[in-house]
Amino acid sequence: MTDSIELGDGREFDIIRELLARWGPRALGIGDDAAMIRLAAGEQLVVSTDSSVEHIHFERAWLTPREIGYRATTAALSDLAAMAASPIGVLLALGLPKSWLDVVGELGDGVGDAIDAAETLVRGGDITGASDLTIGVTVLGGTDAPLRRNGARIADTVYVTGSLGGPGAALAAWQRGDVPDAAARTRFAHPVARIREAIWLARGGARAGIDISDGLLADAGHMAAASGVRIQLDLEQLPLHEGVTPREAAVSGEEYELIVCAPALNVSAFARATKLSLTAVGRVMDPIPDGIGVTARMNGEPAALTRGFRHFA
Amino acid sequence: MTDSIELGDGREFDIIRELLARWGPRALGIGDDAAMIRLAAGEQLVVSTDSSVEHIHFERAWLTPREIGYRATTAALSDLAAMAASPIGVLLALGLPKSWLDVVGELGDGVGDAIDAAETLVRGGDITGASDLTIGVTVLGGTDAPLRRNGARIADTVYVTGSLGGPGAALAAWQRGDVPDAAARTRFAHPVARIREAIWLARGGARAGIDISDGLLADAGHMAAASGVRIQLDLEQLPLHEGVTPREAAVSGEEYELIVCAPALNVSAFARATKLSLTAVGRVMDPIPDGIGVTARMNGEPAALTRGFRHFA
Repeated sequence: MTDSIELGDGREFDIIRELLARWGPRALGIGDDAAMIRLAAGEQLVVSTDSSVEHIHFERAWLTPREIGYRATTAALSDLAAMAASPIGVLLALGLPKSWLDVVGELGDGVGDAIDAAETLVRGGDITGASDLTIGVTVLGGTDAPLRRNGARIADTVYVTGSLGGPGAALAAWQRGDVPDAAARTRFAHPVARIREAIWLARGGARAGIDISDGLLADAGHMAAASGVRIQLDLEQLPLHEGVTPREAAVSGEEYELIVCAPALNVSAFARATKLSLTAVGRVMDPIPDGIGVTARMNGEPAALTRGFRHFA
Repeated sequence: MTDSIELGDGREFDIIRELLARWGPRALGIGDDAAMIRLAAGEQLVVSTDSSVEHIHFERAWLTPREIGYRATTAALSDLAAMAASPIGVLLALGLPKSWLDVVGELGDGVGDAIDAAETLVRGGDITGASDLTIGVTVLGGTDAPLRRNGARIADTVYVTGSLGGPGAALAAWQRGDVPDAAARTRFAHPVARIREAIWLARGGARAGIDISDGLLADAGHMAAASGVRIQLDLEQLPLHEGVTPREAAVSGEEYELIVCAPALNVSAFARATKLSLTAVGRVMDPIPDGIGVTARMNGEPAALTRGFRHFA
């Protein structure tokens, strides 16, 4: 009925051995029933779990196995960036169809690439059979100064890192049967968890933050709802991936760029420190009675949004 | 091609709202990009992830949705018992096929039952579409005295909690198309994470521990490999689920009972404190050159094992 297999003892341990061989010193303390981790004094644990599922989040034809492993791990690590937490490690829950067994090492290399980029470690995991490839990643981090999504205050400026629209353009191309251009494909396949950037921003005065997984409009809406405010975006200010319109950029998901709110941030110092742009794209405003959390202007004139984002609280 | 769906924003948040309503005060701090948790001073974090997948770990026809949610969560919590850690919380990564959407609340109730039994909380999670129901559970715990699987020492006595063979008997009945008897079905559907028992055992002198997920022989093999010893089991001593033979009990998986090693434990004090039996079933011995980690006797005579368990290290 399905492509799923029962991974017998031997098979499962063969896979674990292959992954551990590829990870080398990037895997730590594997082999007991659970990982044990000591936090630094004063640090709070920050923990999140995020799953990437074949046919839901990606298709095999779009990406190499290594890119799929990298992207799934980076997407989860991005939740640590959203909180301005330093990574402590990841746990990998792999649901493996038989048809993916021959590339499990490449998937593991991709996980390793993401681990390297975030300067962290694999601390544990679980492998089972599955019908569709499922990469569940639990990320553990620590911070003594978390960046919450509920910290936006009226009159704050709203900033985004990097440029927006590349992943959406790549996805749109694949979905209409085209090949995306190389730059858009790279933004989809090789997102970066903005961890160092988030820590810089939190130290530099940011008091609310969220990462862009659902799209700028949706995630600004989550931040507005959590903070009890409205966010007004100036669409003409959005930093655009080449060839993308402001409205496309505003709904492009899986960017893993950051939205932060602050009274003011030193944009040029950020760019010097991180080699990434930081752009003021809007302002935090009084909430309005019907509960719409995000409104937009284009060149100073009210602009209708194609998708409405409401409070979820 | 598959039963999978894309959970749109609205759909996903509807499900989250339904789960949060059912969990009530058993869910804490949900709604930011990640959960924040403060550990007690001196405590180490203990963390593990475990996935239960339809068609791999269970079939829908065997169990109610509530039992499926309970069992998946309890299986993960059992890894905290194996380390003698106190639960701090769980993260739930749910892969939901369309055909399970109408019973997601019942799955959630089962998760809640397991949370209640372990006196812990849901601290976060993730919901995606999937072809087969996938319940990924990350468990977080704390301890200042972890019970490791590598602590077994030569001449220690090997003990198991409870009785063995019920889950294997239930599984065998389902697999041959029969209905399991009620007691065996209950042992499969309602395992208990032996957390309080593990903490009692660690305080009472146990110096190595593991939970039985793969079966007594396999898990004793893991413990022997990690400890660099051999474990000799006396099959006639095994505490048996009614109607099960010692050899069936020795390979019955998903028991979630504990194996511990200690110079000596007060079996009757354990039974008084926990209302559960503790049985001496073997002894820790010198390793033998070919690396077989578990050997067995029956009434004092060497007994061949039907499956060989070797060192994985």
